[in-house]
Amino acid sequence: MISVYGYSPSGNCHKLRMMLGHLDRDHRWIETDSAHGATRTPEYLAKNPNGRVPMLETDDGRILVESNAILCWLAEGTPYFGGDAWQRAQTLSWLFFEQYSHEPYIAVARFICGWAPPDSPRRAELPTLRERGHQAFGVMETHLAAHAWFSGDHYSIADIALFGYTHCADDGGFALGAYPHVLAWLDRIRAQPGFVSMPALAAENAERIALSRTG
Amino acid sequence: MISVYGYSPSGNCHKLRMMLGHLDRDHRWIETDSAHGATRTPEYLAKNPNGRVPMLETDDGRILVESNAILCWLAEGTPYFGGDAWQRAQTLSWLFFEQYSHEPYIAVARFICGWAPPDSPRRAELPTLRERGHQAFGVMETHLAAHAWFSGDHYSIADIALFGYTHCADDGGFALGAYPHVLAWLDRIRAQPGFVSMPALAAENAERIALSRTG
Repeated sequence: MISVYGYSPSGNCHKLRMMLGHLDRDHRWIETDSAHGATRTPEYLAKNPNGRVPMLETDDGRILVESNAILCWLAEGTPYFGGDAWQRAQTLSWLFFEQYSHEPYIAVARFICGWAPPDSPRRAELPTLRERGHQAFGVMETHLAAHAWFSGDHYSIADIALFGYTHCADDGGFALGAYPHVLAWLDRIRAQPGFVSMPALAAENAERIALSRTG
Repeated sequence: MISVYGYSPSGNCHKLRMMLGHLDRDHRWIETDSAHGATRTPEYLAKNPNGRVPMLETDDGRILVESNAILCWLAEGTPYFGGDAWQRAQTLSWLFFEQYSHEPYIAVARFICGWAPPDSPRRAELPTLRERGHQAFGVMETHLAAHAWFSGDHYSIADIALFGYTHCADDGGFALGAYPHVLAWLDRIRAQPGFVSMPALAAENAERIALSRTG
């Protein structure tokens, strides 16, 4: 049995919940509220000195961190991370794109809208975050105009990783109407066997997001 | 034969030059000055819509982007990316750490010091970038206090990826004296067979970095 330390509203954590759902893999989910310090305790930092979720722990106490590395390990030997070395490198390429050119803008804008106080000075970051997030969506739209999936001819961990924060980008003030291929791809993912939706947000976060839309 | 489009002073590009040196692998290096628009031409964007270096192209015109995905592909089947699925996932974990928690602070601080104009408003970002960069060095120091290498018991692409911007962090105003294990690890890497140093910076960039140290 594996344990996954995750914060349910986090797109990075949700990737693992999706993968575990598709694989129908037994696991223990340990809810870990990173927005309220649960990854900064001495006990947690002893396991992950970088103090982030998600984190995977095996029953014999071995630790693996970084959402996309965990995805690779869970998917090893399955069609979700298949193909030859070139194909797998293409899959990895999209995983690195997600962590470098997508998540730091799209996830952070969502965090500011839904988790930071409404009067946070971090709201000043939103225009730049949105500009760069739209650049990432533009790259995705260009790819999806010619391909059904991000890596190879079927659904893979590249799609799961990019779904993580794309499907809830609206929370951060991103309108996806200009990206019809992205919207169609989101629907194709939702139709996959074993697909798991992200749990509803806590009222406090949902209210801040609603306020952010009107404010 | 493979072609690598790279900007020599970039740590992300230098990772590939190191890997190619260790493997003694024939390649064509196509110098691509990303600091002066060479990755924003229509021809380049047709190959890499994300407009970044490095980029690898095969002789039959296939493209692979993202420095760490290229490292994985080059190292496939070699001890630089060896071990079982768990060990390879640990290697990937450090590659994702590098791109998410290390490069965005350490590489960007160096860019501001050496490439942005001396009066750039981006200099205001430096205190935050340095704080977060030091957090990354702290995570590295903790790991290296107990391990000689980042993944497994020998030198791997995890070390190469982290060397990319650690070895030149001083350019961005990071003093590494507080991290003796990191300094010793840098020296171990420089002693590896086939190690290749980063070429000297252009005078303009070296002068800006010198000015930044005194300014």
